[in-house]
Amino acid sequence: MTKQELFEQILKKKSYLCVGLDTDIKKIPSHLLKEKDPIFEFNRRIIDATVDVAVAYKPNIAFYEALGAKGWESLQRTMEYLPKNCFSIADAKRGDIGNTSGLYARAFFDKNTSGFDFDSVTVAPYMGADSVLPFLEFDGKWVILLALTSNAGSDDFQQLKVGDKYLYEAVLERSQKWADSERMMYVVGATKADKLQEIRQIIPENFLLVPGVGAQGGSLEEVSKYGMNKQCGLLVNSSRAIIYASSEENFAEIAGKEARKVQIEMEEYLEKYLP
Amino acid sequence: MTKQELFEQILKKKSYLCVGLDTDIKKIPSHLLKEKDPIFEFNRRIIDATVDVAVAYKPNIAFYEALGAKGWESLQRTMEYLPKNCFSIADAKRGDIGNTSGLYARAFFDKNTSGFDFDSVTVAPYMGADSVLPFLEFDGKWVILLALTSNAGSDDFQQLKVGDKYLYEAVLERSQKWADSERMMYVVGATKADKLQEIRQIIPENFLLVPGVGAQGGSLEEVSKYGMNKQCGLLVNSSRAIIYASSEENFAEIAGKEARKVQIEMEEYLEKYLP
Repeated sequence: MTKQELFEQILKKKSYLCVGLDTDIKKIPSHLLKEKDPIFEFNRRIIDATVDVAVAYKPNIAFYEALGAKGWESLQRTMEYLPKNCFSIADAKRGDIGNTSGLYARAFFDKNTSGFDFDSVTVAPYMGADSVLPFLEFDGKWVILLALTSNAGSDDFQQLKVGDKYLYEAVLERSQKWADSERMMYVVGATKADKLQEIRQIIPENFLLVPGVGAQGGSLEEVSKYGMNKQCGLLVNSSRAIIYASSEENFAEIAGKEARKVQIEMEEYLEKYLP
Repeated sequence: MTKQELFEQILKKKSYLCVGLDTDIKKIPSHLLKEKDPIFEFNRRIIDATVDVAVAYKPNIAFYEALGAKGWESLQRTMEYLPKNCFSIADAKRGDIGNTSGLYARAFFDKNTSGFDFDSVTVAPYMGADSVLPFLEFDGKWVILLALTSNAGSDDFQQLKVGDKYLYEAVLERSQKWADSERMMYVVGATKADKLQEIRQIIPENFLLVPGVGAQGGSLEEVSKYGMNKQCGLLVNSSRAIIYASSEENFAEIAGKEARKVQIEMEEYLEKYLP
């Protein structure tokens, strides 16, 4: 999916919501456990209930990997079920030396070898250029690079001063040489909304994937006010607050209502803040 | 496996060799392709041929993940085949917010949910303390934290100056608070052997996992001279130079001979440099 196509979906759905599929076998409604693949059944119903208001879906790979080979089968069924007009994100936070990153790229992008064909993958920057570039060798696929994450530990290294700037700013600046805003997005946590104005000065054009609204406490209005650019430039993720809104039989309906609430708020901010 | 047990294996085998199982379906001898699980068959024969001289095995998770669910099955068979007196490393370079890292820890450490039961996993430090600590909640399991990697891209961020030290030194220092040398190792590339003396001043006790000898050009003698501590403190990895030494039917025998050559060199350095 191109940047322009993503923006068109945002305008059509009046939403920049990404639904995080952090699907935990221990948290899904118990009546699903009798299904052959409970994880996929949960995801299928969540997708059906939210697809009118979500422009992106983000399976958190850890949740599938924790189940071993059968987790990867649930992930594959989920990926195949995702509507083609939604942007798909493998939230994997991978990154290794060149030839190994090339294999991680195959894992998420090369349908012929791995079975997976996501639009994008999240990548950790610590190992530098040659750990990121192999992901960009797949035509039309996106890298979503970690910049400033939403967790407390982001203070440990990301916010250390490197000369006159923070490490995460050095990551934003240096990685601008690796790809343009048609292929590269950044993770910036909603809990750091106060930094968004400065971040937008470094990367005015790139989309940001913003976790941390909802369970982690970030403000959707602040993110939208300080982070939006003229193609919206935001994908705001919500996982637990939507998918686990209810553990009853009608969980999907309730999840759909929660997602709709977020979309209504987003519609307001698009009117208010889209330049 | 405890640090003392690992050191005992090193003394017994007169070796600190880790064999990297970077097993690529495109590179294994063609006669194995008729086997039901060629990846596992390759690994099984490599393990049989090297177990007398290797103290650790390191499957590079990307190579398995690139094959989707069936790759995870090959990985599982491989893990179950690894001898219990060898230290096992899931080279996965994971790291995410706390609850997600907890799931990655389950993926590699919790036999009951994922089927995997590695001794250790490699972890990327960019997201800070709460992305690393969940791996340490599993009794007796190890974190191997990326510090200074062997690739060219390690210049991009790891070697930026943070105040009066490099970022990788800040990683070494800060992470000392998270676990002691009984639970934490560090990745330091052999291509950076000149930095080992300074690194040993910060972390005198910890084991180092050292990639980059062989195909990447690092010197085993320099690594041993500057990196060895009184419990050896080194696991030096070789992947391609051993496992792909031959693509003929007798590939395992040739791999065994290559591994033996490395062990003979290591035996010399243990005599020469072990304090």
